[in-house]
Amino acid sequence: MSNIAAAIITIGDELLIGQTIDTNSAWIARHLNELGIDVVRRVAVGDNKASIVKALDEEIAGATIILITGGLGPTSDDITKPLLSEYFGGKLVVNERVLAHLKEIFTKRNRPFLERNMKQAEVPENCTVLFNKMGTAPGMLFELAAGSSQPAVREPFNYTYGEILESTIQTPNSNPDSYRDQIPSFGGAHDGKIIIAMPGVPFEMISIMQDEVLPRLRERFFSDALLHRTIVTAGEGESFIAEKILALEEALPTHIKLAYLPDAGMVKLRLTGRGKDKELLAKELEARQEEIATLLGDIVVARDDYPMEKIIGDALLAKGKMLGLAESCTGGFIGHLVTQVNGSSKYFNGSIVSYSNDVKRDVLGVEQETIDDCGAVSEQTVREMAKGALRVLNSDYALAVSGVLGPDGGTERVPVGTVWMAVADKDTVKTKEFRFHYNRQQNKEMAARMAMLMVWKFLRRES
Amino acid sequence: MSNIAAAIITIGDELLIGQTIDTNSAWIARHLNELGIDVVRRVAVGDNKASIVKALDEEIAGATIILITGGLGPTSDDITKPLLSEYFGGKLVVNERVLAHLKEIFTKRNRPFLERNMKQAEVPENCTVLFNKMGTAPGMLFELAAGSSQPAVREPFNYTYGEILESTIQTPNSNPDSYRDQIPSFGGAHDGKIIIAMPGVPFEMISIMQDEVLPRLRERFFSDALLHRTIVTAGEGESFIAEKILALEEALPTHIKLAYLPDAGMVKLRLTGRGKDKELLAKELEARQEEIATLLGDIVVARDDYPMEKIIGDALLAKGKMLGLAESCTGGFIGHLVTQVNGSSKYFNGSIVSYSNDVKRDVLGVEQETIDDCGAVSEQTVREMAKGALRVLNSDYALAVSGVLGPDGGTERVPVGTVWMAVADKDTVKTKEFRFHYNRQQNKEMAARMAMLMVWKFLRRES
Repeated sequence: MSNIAAAIITIGDELLIGQTIDTNSAWIARHLNELGIDVVRRVAVGDNKASIVKALDEEIAGATIILITGGLGPTSDDITKPLLSEYFGGKLVVNERVLAHLKEIFTKRNRPFLERNMKQAEVPENCTVLFNKMGTAPGMLFELAAGSSQPAVREPFNYTYGEILESTIQTPNSNPDSYRDQIPSFGGAHDGKIIIAMPGVPFEMISIMQDEVLPRLRERFFSDALLHRTIVTAGEGESFIAEKILALEEALPTHIKLAYLPDAGMVKLRLTGRGKDKELLAKELEARQEEIATLLGDIVVARDDYPMEKIIGDALLAKGKMLGLAESCTGGFIGHLVTQVNGSSKYFNGSIVSYSNDVKRDVLGVEQETIDDCGAVSEQTVREMAKGALRVLNSDYALAVSGVLGPDGGTERVPVGTVWMAVADKDTVKTKEFRFHYNRQQNKEMAARMAMLMVWKFLRRES
Repeated sequence: MSNIAAAIITIGDELLIGQTIDTNSAWIARHLNELGIDVVRRVAVGDNKASIVKALDEEIAGATIILITGGLGPTSDDITKPLLSEYFGGKLVVNERVLAHLKEIFTKRNRPFLERNMKQAEVPENCTVLFNKMGTAPGMLFELAAGSSQPAVREPFNYTYGEILESTIQTPNSNPDSYRDQIPSFGGAHDGKIIIAMPGVPFEMISIMQDEVLPRLRERFFSDALLHRTIVTAGEGESFIAEKILALEEALPTHIKLAYLPDAGMVKLRLTGRGKDKELLAKELEARQEEIATLLGDIVVARDDYPMEKIIGDALLAKGKMLGLAESCTGGFIGHLVTQVNGSSKYFNGSIVSYSNDVKRDVLGVEQETIDDCGAVSEQTVREMAKGALRVLNSDYALAVSGVLGPDGGTERVPVGTVWMAVADKDTVKTKEFRFHYNRQQNKEMAARMAMLMVWKFLRRES
């Protein structure tokens, strides 16, 4: 099961000046990885012809699949699209399907379709158009097939798109000569390579990847069936798990791989198998999944690759029960995570974000005496907050969190990073104290994750 | 004012398999940019000697400053540190300050300092150690000074660190020969270049950058004073602003630059000036800042580079007033943003996350009739939610948000993306309807940003 090498090139000045954080690359890497394709390098360059050509040369030389994101928006369109077209030796032509799609979008938005918008419907004649149902800029796939009758580059870089180009090249190193001699003489080195360009807008990229790219790569590079099975664990680290399943892992056949994917407080184990017979493979993987789950016992949280908020949601749905929150230091962050799941209204009533002590007292009914004697960050306070949330939100389960995230507000008795949590139903309250050692934002994130883990453990204990 | 070229190399398998999103590069780029250094390329490679050496060769050839993050954690330490040491022709030696710091950390955590931990205190003899007060792995700065008596590489790559190396090289392309011939013959090409390696943990990287790297780069490359002045605007786009200040922008002297930094619903304008006389420069910049603010009128939100939650917080602090929230579709996200600001308890009471209609009715006091007749996503409902939040949270101002973020839950009358918002004090309620066209997560983000903008406008109207 040898993996195919891929490289990612991201194009855009906004990535280099730090205005945008690149989330596309991680998404792409994760999904290629599931398919059996390894990303071996990622390069980010600006909206600059010389830099783009250099990156193409280098990455095409090193990888089999090259994925390009960005540089195709309405403002930067003028650089990347003609450049790719010329790089692969073709010219731009209007694509009828893209044109029809564009006109439809313009009509929907009540905007006139002008002559200059035609340019958006142009694609290199020598690419496969990857339809972008979420936006205006289509994706493009260039295949440099072995034994193709079409040379990779049919003519030297010759700037036929004149005005467009002149108006966009304004960077210091825009002298064509400076990169003209960098154009490699292609040929055999490109055989069987695939170059894919997509817009940089995340949901457009994801849509094109899912509908157009991943199925094609799958078909092109893998004839075998490819299946995954996941085990989500919580509460123990990688080394603990590795020791428990050492023998099983060493005895895995070569067509099944096991990956450890650690996340705050959780470790996901992903079994990936490849084989001719899909049904047989599924049975094999499920047998291993079962063995691993048995070996790991009660640290197993789920057998699907979901985040904790979804796992809790499913557990609540199955019970037909409602969750309510009482958040102090997390400020609403746990409610935010819970409601990231579509359909969460079926099991989530809401959250009382009681940032001030008055709200803890007036809305949640925490005794003023408790706050005065024990403090707002104490076992007794979160206990009363949880009971208050059960009552006020009319919920079956409640989670309460109160802490000091820092950098200010710590005391000798309750230092920065201290967080008390309680989970309750009408009969029971479980409490726990945590101490986090990061900055304010990270302490909040960790508190939210540990809180959800506590809810999950409480739900499991009961089932 | 010509800018210096920098490149960023991130090292780590976790970046290539998509397990981690790289936020470091954006932070670094933004802060270098403020200094007058342009990031021209970013490369991510795995924990693999051949890939790291290739990236070093390429980026050192192209940029003046090379910043490396990652590859220095306790698990990957074995690869990058010895490799850098050899790459620049030195050997590893124990650094006394790092050793003392490590021992202190181990003592604090009640863990014994073992012989094998000594390795963590080793640094290349030919680097400047960048002290890491937030963690165990120090940063390293290699300077290839013009006319240095030390050759860049004193001896060929020779693997003196034997066992360590053998135990970590297990990648398919781990044959030393495969990258030995990639080692360039250095020399003059390296003159005056600076290579900096830092751990990949974000808060450790940030701490080293702020305390050790940025001041050094400042001193090394810029003798002039460098100052910034910011104007934060909201509610209008870049092109509107550009038109308003066109004449002023064109008349800027060459030592003052203006940058547009757009963000959802907001545009930040940053004036950067460089000059011999710091006081004179400050006066010049402030005069321009004043002129721009006058030209832009009431779209100016602030004159400091703060996020909207901080700007609102400062406005509330100045008034000595408290804010309360009633969130439905945002699920606590606005409360989360507000409480990201240290000290927000001085002006933020809390949020009633009324995800279910029962909570809207029972806790916030929205009339059942309103929900039945107008719907949960309606002007009347957010009006009553805001009034409820004022009362229940005992706040001076309240913001209420209710909408359908999707993908499910839309109707013909209230399609997915519809969000109603209200801002109120005891006398006035302002309401507004929005329609967002993104996915669930992005609609939530946009709703939160627009909501905060509405609060800000409400506060300004009053002052």
